[in-house]
Amino acid sequence: MKLYGYWRSSASYRVRIALALKGIEAEYIAVNLREGEHFSPSHAKRNAQPFVPVLELEDGTKLTQSTAIIEYLDAEYGQAALLPADPVLRAQVRAAASIISADIAPIQNLRVLKYIRAEYEQDDAGVKSWAAHWIRESFKALEQIASSNDKPFLLTDTPSLAECCLIPQIYNARRFGVDMDDFPVLKQIDERCLGLTAFQKALPETQPDAPEG
Amino acid sequence: MKLYGYWRSSASYRVRIALALKGIEAEYIAVNLREGEHFSPSHAKRNAQPFVPVLELEDGTKLTQSTAIIEYLDAEYGQAALLPADPVLRAQVRAAASIISADIAPIQNLRVLKYIRAEYEQDDAGVKSWAAHWIRESFKALEQIASSNDKPFLLTDTPSLAECCLIPQIYNARRFGVDMDDFPVLKQIDERCLGLTAFQKALPETQPDAPEG
Repeated sequence: MKLYGYWRSSASYRVRIALALKGIEAEYIAVNLREGEHFSPSHAKRNAQPFVPVLELEDGTKLTQSTAIIEYLDAEYGQAALLPADPVLRAQVRAAASIISADIAPIQNLRVLKYIRAEYEQDDAGVKSWAAHWIRESFKALEQIASSNDKPFLLTDTPSLAECCLIPQIYNARRFGVDMDDFPVLKQIDERCLGLTAFQKALPETQPDAPEG
Repeated sequence: MKLYGYWRSSASYRVRIALALKGIEAEYIAVNLREGEHFSPSHAKRNAQPFVPVLELEDGTKLTQSTAIIEYLDAEYGQAALLPADPVLRAQVRAAASIISADIAPIQNLRVLKYIRAEYEQDDAGVKSWAAHWIRESFKALEQIASSNDKPFLLTDTPSLAECCLIPQIYNARRFGVDMDDFPVLKQIDERCLGLTAFQKALPETQPDAPEG
């Protein structure tokens, strides 16, 4: 199995967490987003969208879109289930994941930030304020969801698809200057996750394509 | 079962299609987004996000996020499967749905358009151009995916989760002035779907809260 990703891409980071939680080894192949490698003809053959991650299976099949990849891995590899068996809780975990994967991440994606910078003449501070705004809006909802139960993670006793999405989003939140003290329960979940080997293994800074130092 | 929705919300429209394809009757309760009803205390009790749709089950449980709701319905109601049994095809259908539910819809959502209008002083044309840009970017990928097979729908022989997302997005694309002639395969799938009773039943204009005429 091969994972085409980028150290700082939060969607790649999500899949790295899922692979690590399940103990699946995949060859990591870096696609340098800063240098525009995702727009290359070779990447276009892997994905109709100029995006990472792409998970290439043993037979050459290429899967795209991080949450679809994680759902696939969860159904095919039974160990460390990322979705609860109970149908309602399963829907709630998927909904929490969607709050991140749909309502935050795509809005503060690199391509959108570039567009805002160019089209609406926003400087670094303007771009940061855009990203932080959308992160905060959805973190309010996630904080409320996490506070409504006594579970150690967002909705469950063990890390789920929701944490695969949440931890990379908190990483991004910090980059964009969001004060995580405003979201104490999410912050606690982040600390709990980052104490686990699987989450440490998936950290952006420990990837082969991360800059040194 | 009760569906809290809004006639023109594309996420509500997705769930209406899924319910209609499966032949499930749900009471439709309108939440007027134009009048800000989604910010009311009564809606806040239903959803931690000020969003529709919300699906209320018989026991009062409230499910949120359209794709999580559709996944729930598909697992609980066997008829008219919206996800193929084959794991790879299943992942591909979910990926196609995510291209819409994550990479388009949230970026051209009402709240984002309002923000752009206010913060970046965009007029109607500016807002339309923003929305159309992101729709077109992802429709290019979807057109390529749909063209890579001979199936009557995006990836399958019968309508799937992907069409639950695609048809509402094409409806929005037209509102924002996207020329669907640029996406002939998607246009054909749209026509095929709109020829089916379930899709007609879910149309925005036929909902009780749609303006008359």
